Amino acid sequence: MRTVKVPLGARSYSIVIGRRVADRLGRACAKLGFSPKCAVVTDTQVGPLHSARILASLRKAGFSPVVVTVPAGETAKCLEQVEICYRALARHRLERKSFLVALGGGVVGDLAGFVAATYLRGIPFIQLPTTLVAQVDSSVGGKTGVNLPDGKNLVGAFHQPRLVMCDLATLDSLPEREFRAGIAEIIKYGIIRDAAFFEQLERDLDRLLAREEAALGAFVARSCEIKAEVVGLDETETGLRSILNFGHTLGHALETVAGYGRYLHGEAIAIGQVAAARLSAELLGLPAEAVERLQALFARAGLPTSVSLDAAQKKRLLAAMQLDKKVSGGEIRFVLAEAIGEVRWGKRVPEKLIWRALAP
Amino acid sequence: MRTVKVPLGARSYSIVIGRRVADRLGRACAKLGFSPKCAVVTDTQVGPLHSARILASLRKAGFSPVVVTVPAGETAKCLEQVEICYRALARHRLERKSFLVALGGGVVGDLAGFVAATYLRGIPFIQLPTTLVAQVDSSVGGKTGVNLPDGKNLVGAFHQPRLVMCDLATLDSLPEREFRAGIAEIIKYGIIRDAAFFEQLERDLDRLLAREEAALGAFVARSCEIKAEVVGLDETETGLRSILNFGHTLGHALETVAGYGRYLHGEAIAIGQVAAARLSAELLGLPAEAVERLQALFARAGLPTSVSLDAAQKKRLLAAMQLDKKVSGGEIRFVLAEAIGEVRWGKRVPEKLIWRALAP
Repeated sequence: MRTVKVPLGARSYSIVIGRRVADRLGRACAKLGFSPKCAVVTDTQVGPLHSARILASLRKAGFSPVVVTVPAGETAKCLEQVEICYRALARHRLERKSFLVALGGGVVGDLAGFVAATYLRGIPFIQLPTTLVAQVDSSVGGKTGVNLPDGKNLVGAFHQPRLVMCDLATLDSLPEREFRAGIAEIIKYGIIRDAAFFEQLERDLDRLLAREEAALGAFVARSCEIKAEVVGLDETETGLRSILNFGHTLGHALETVAGYGRYLHGEAIAIGQVAAARLSAELLGLPAEAVERLQALFARAGLPTSVSLDAAQKKRLLAAMQLDKKVSGGEIRFVLAEAIGEVRWGKRVPEKLIWRALAP
Repeated sequence: MRTVKVPLGARSYSIVIGRRVADRLGRACAKLGFSPKCAVVTDTQVGPLHSARILASLRKAGFSPVVVTVPAGETAKCLEQVEICYRALARHRLERKSFLVALGGGVVGDLAGFVAATYLRGIPFIQLPTTLVAQVDSSVGGKTGVNLPDGKNLVGAFHQPRLVMCDLATLDSLPEREFRAGIAEIIKYGIIRDAAFFEQLERDLDRLLAREEAALGAFVARSCEIKAEVVGLDETETGLRSILNFGHTLGHALETVAGYGRYLHGEAIAIGQVAAARLSAELLGLPAEAVERLQALFARAGLPTSVSLDAAQKKRLLAAMQLDKKVSGGEIRFVLAEAIGEVRWGKRVPEKLIWRALAP
């Protein structure tokens, strides 16, 4: 078992990573001093696989959980499901010292985290991510929220979990496509912050793809470490934290334009990261050799690296980017790389270059 | 013009109080360095009276406002209206440095504040309260939120405004019943924190009821001062701030049970405060003479001081109190008074005493 600390003063918390760590959930919650009533928010896919042992662990430690099950998939990240969760919490009489467990992937974590952030003006919550993308990214750092028809994550709150448990056993049942999508976020950490980690990925990608326990644990832990460090330095994204959005400005817009569900998040940001690398070559002098290594690594992980758009799609993509939270004064800003392991944020990019970068 | 500071470190802000201070809104926003796009959230009653000069002031200072009008009354404080506001903000392309103006009473302030707290994970907002209860209470302190069918304010966030403008001219058109309801919160400040202020109210209540400018300005300003001081000492209600809930545990439950709209908030908490005073006499030795003075002051302000409930209503009232955010370990806690100007929080009260206190 590995533990990574997220250093946020009074709001600091641990990420524990290992096989079957979720079996310790009940004891961990007892140590955190929560009230007995709690809620487990999960989805129709993850619930049947994992909620029984989660509930058993909570009950054994004296807690009284209610389960709220939302539909599987990105469409659940909406205000309607938020309301369903609120009502269930109210009926179960959760109090300010009660807590909520988010059991599922990024959708459940973002949705349940937002519910925890806003129910009774904020109750504690625990992340129990069951997908690779959630374990290495979305469950850490306190960004919570839901989508509007107008764009992704337009509604939300900063609300840090009190604990994150990355149970590697939950990844056993993860479909191959979703597992590969998670690797897109792992590659990102190498690009934005750690060239040696990127090289390690180039070396050990096959072991990771084979879900070898040692490789999996190491890559998840180092990803969480990098995220924790960045979040610890800039919790509410006044500057540095935006490097975590490398590939995301385009990626989010692609998800919106393609319709939720066409691309997995990891697939959309794989395209976005490769495009950002190409833009980096033009605007920041990122060497062509680095762009190629980067594109090759995403391709080896089975992820898409380009997309062709017609004129109508381009127009909608641009409109979606203009709704991005990173827009300032109407201008879209990008995170671009100077080298693998070294990025700059807040870079302006002329529109024309974007289309060439998406489909070279 | 009077100015009261709310001391909250980097989140400190001013409350400006005076006749037609809202005419300076545009200039004040320019000084705060906001982006041009903004939204004015108001309701069908207040909008026609005041939005024209608010919009003119914003436009003159170079801002581009969109108006979102919600229905007048407590029923607008719901998730459906929250979503309508979000969508309007998205369509108008508000950004993180854009801002929102809450123009209206407590309902509009709470609703619009919650929208500002959660749109793009939080954008700045300004309170422009147009009722007495909003000017002396709900617009100050950063509590925002909406109701669920299960209870009042069950959903919300702490999000401080960047400025509060109490324009006394907006009170000219306030119906008498609503004006009197606001006085219930003013009386509260005397009871919880300032015996001299309570005496001043006993002396000058008639001048206040006549809406004499000097009395009005002085009572609004001193109320804001007391609230600012308490909020500055305990922003997120870990202890002291709960004294602001004097009379509110019963008051909120009464509002829920009676159906939103039967009692104005100020009327419900008038009943709640007088009941809390009677409970204080039994449990904390508050002198009978103080209970009488207190009841007499509410009565002189034309506010209700008791309510008779049948068995079914009592049951529902108890259930509503158990959903109150102040409940801990299933136990309802009260704020009770030792003397006028001196209260204690976190007091347990046996159920039987509650019924006698509501209808002696």
